[in-house]
Amino acid sequence: MAASMTVKSATRVAQGMLKRCEFTARSLGNTQTIFAAYLPDVTEFKKLPVVYWLSGLTCTDENFSQKAGAFQAACDNQVVLVMPDTSPRGDGVPDEDPHTYDFGIGAGFYLNATTDKYKTHYNMYDFVVKELPALVEANLPVTDKRAISGHSMGGHGALTIGLKNPERYSSVSAFAPICNPTKVPWGQKAFKFYLGSDEQSWKQYDATELISEYKGKDLHILCDCGTADNFLVGDVNQLQPLAFMEAAQKAKVPVTFRMQAGYDHSYYFMSTFIREHLEHHARFLHAQN
Amino acid sequence: MAASMTVKSATRVAQGMLKRCEFTARSLGNTQTIFAAYLPDVTEFKKLPVVYWLSGLTCTDENFSQKAGAFQAACDNQVVLVMPDTSPRGDGVPDEDPHTYDFGIGAGFYLNATTDKYKTHYNMYDFVVKELPALVEANLPVTDKRAISGHSMGGHGALTIGLKNPERYSSVSAFAPICNPTKVPWGQKAFKFYLGSDEQSWKQYDATELISEYKGKDLHILCDCGTADNFLVGDVNQLQPLAFMEAAQKAKVPVTFRMQAGYDHSYYFMSTFIREHLEHHARFLHAQN
Repeated sequence: MAASMTVKSATRVAQGMLKRCEFTARSLGNTQTIFAAYLPDVTEFKKLPVVYWLSGLTCTDENFSQKAGAFQAACDNQVVLVMPDTSPRGDGVPDEDPHTYDFGIGAGFYLNATTDKYKTHYNMYDFVVKELPALVEANLPVTDKRAISGHSMGGHGALTIGLKNPERYSSVSAFAPICNPTKVPWGQKAFKFYLGSDEQSWKQYDATELISEYKGKDLHILCDCGTADNFLVGDVNQLQPLAFMEAAQKAKVPVTFRMQAGYDHSYYFMSTFIREHLEHHARFLHAQN
Repeated sequence: MAASMTVKSATRVAQGMLKRCEFTARSLGNTQTIFAAYLPDVTEFKKLPVVYWLSGLTCTDENFSQKAGAFQAACDNQVVLVMPDTSPRGDGVPDEDPHTYDFGIGAGFYLNATTDKYKTHYNMYDFVVKELPALVEANLPVTDKRAISGHSMGGHGALTIGLKNPERYSSVSAFAPICNPTKVPWGQKAFKFYLGSDEQSWKQYDATELISEYKGKDLHILCDCGTADNFLVGDVNQLQPLAFMEAAQKAKVPVTFRMQAGYDHSYYFMSTFIREHLEHHARFLHAQN
């Protein structure tokens, strides 16, 4: 039986309602966790498909709601948005000391940790793939049609989760995703702490590795990355979109990856293209098949 | 000669560019002040009219940019947005001790202070009406056609500034404005500190008082207020929209004032209706006359 949840707040925005919900997440070591759900239909009579949104490093469930300007587009496209936190939080959740922005709390990397210190709490992969959808589908007016999208670390999450679970998602999209984490400092640091030093075990959470071997259905993958993104053109290329595109091409997996001239890594970039992403997801979520 | 300004950052968003600019504001006691300008046309070949946006209590130039989701609508309506801070800031700017959210820094109330302590720095009225437009019109690709809009304390600013300067603005709008500040705690506290205890002098900054006497051209005033706004339906009605509507009706001044069912005081409310406000302003800003 799915767990129950508490609605902490309900705020009217566009033609729908933004609800922040709390529940005890088993996959996160039974910590209290908050997620947000945007429901375009306030009557809740109509069951709608869901776009799961995975945020980037440092974010909570709130950043996307406040800054992406996505809710009118969610109404226009008749999709529910579900926005989880980026990690477990609270007393007893382990972290490195001192805390850094790119690991631990606020930086769960959407994987299941295997190291002793982190394996009890840091299972954002199971949380996003299984526990959260089960809760959402039991408690909110939604169908079992799902898409998944995200930004930066959350773009990594959307791509890897989509590629590992094609039967669960009708489409996948990402903004400025970390495409090849096993090859860049962000990923190497996090994967070592969460997964240990066997680098072979890291590959299951690397979108470039996964797409090289992908044999599933068309996931309708859409990605956008700004050409002025400082994590792309700064001292270190943490994103590696070309490695991903090259792997997709070699494996003959269709991917639309757009390099958008002049945009950076911020929510200003996402707010510009989020409507196109939701239109993309709606096309497949509402298709009869 | 208009002062010069420094562009501190330029960020691509929607089809245009968000610039944060700094200059020394004479009317704010020669403090360094930052404002933001959103330019829909990145070529800057085309001069566009300007909507001045006045934010509410506690805000800087950044809150509206980050949370209102207004920039695509600014592009679609071909208007520049100029977003000043809500008060002077920095060393030497006086405030009460302890600082409170509803007075002093972050709470300039868009008036010219007359009390000794505040009159050197707190002249947001002169700043918004004269100094900022002169700077903007000398340094950015804009025409001299202007509209003015704002939220809460900034809605009070937009209404009072519009009503006092009808020749300078083709339209006025507000979200959840403080309509009758001389009659509510927010206004009474601020006006006493900024203007002294002669309550007669307060009336020149009260939209309800001003509209009662208004004899100018049609300002095309559009206001929205949420019925779940906690400053409307909470313990104290700080907004008093009905007093304003009644005064407008008695004075036969046309005002469109919409009470929007279920919305609160937040940026979620504004993000829902900002496009309609910009469409409203564009209609008059782009009219040939």
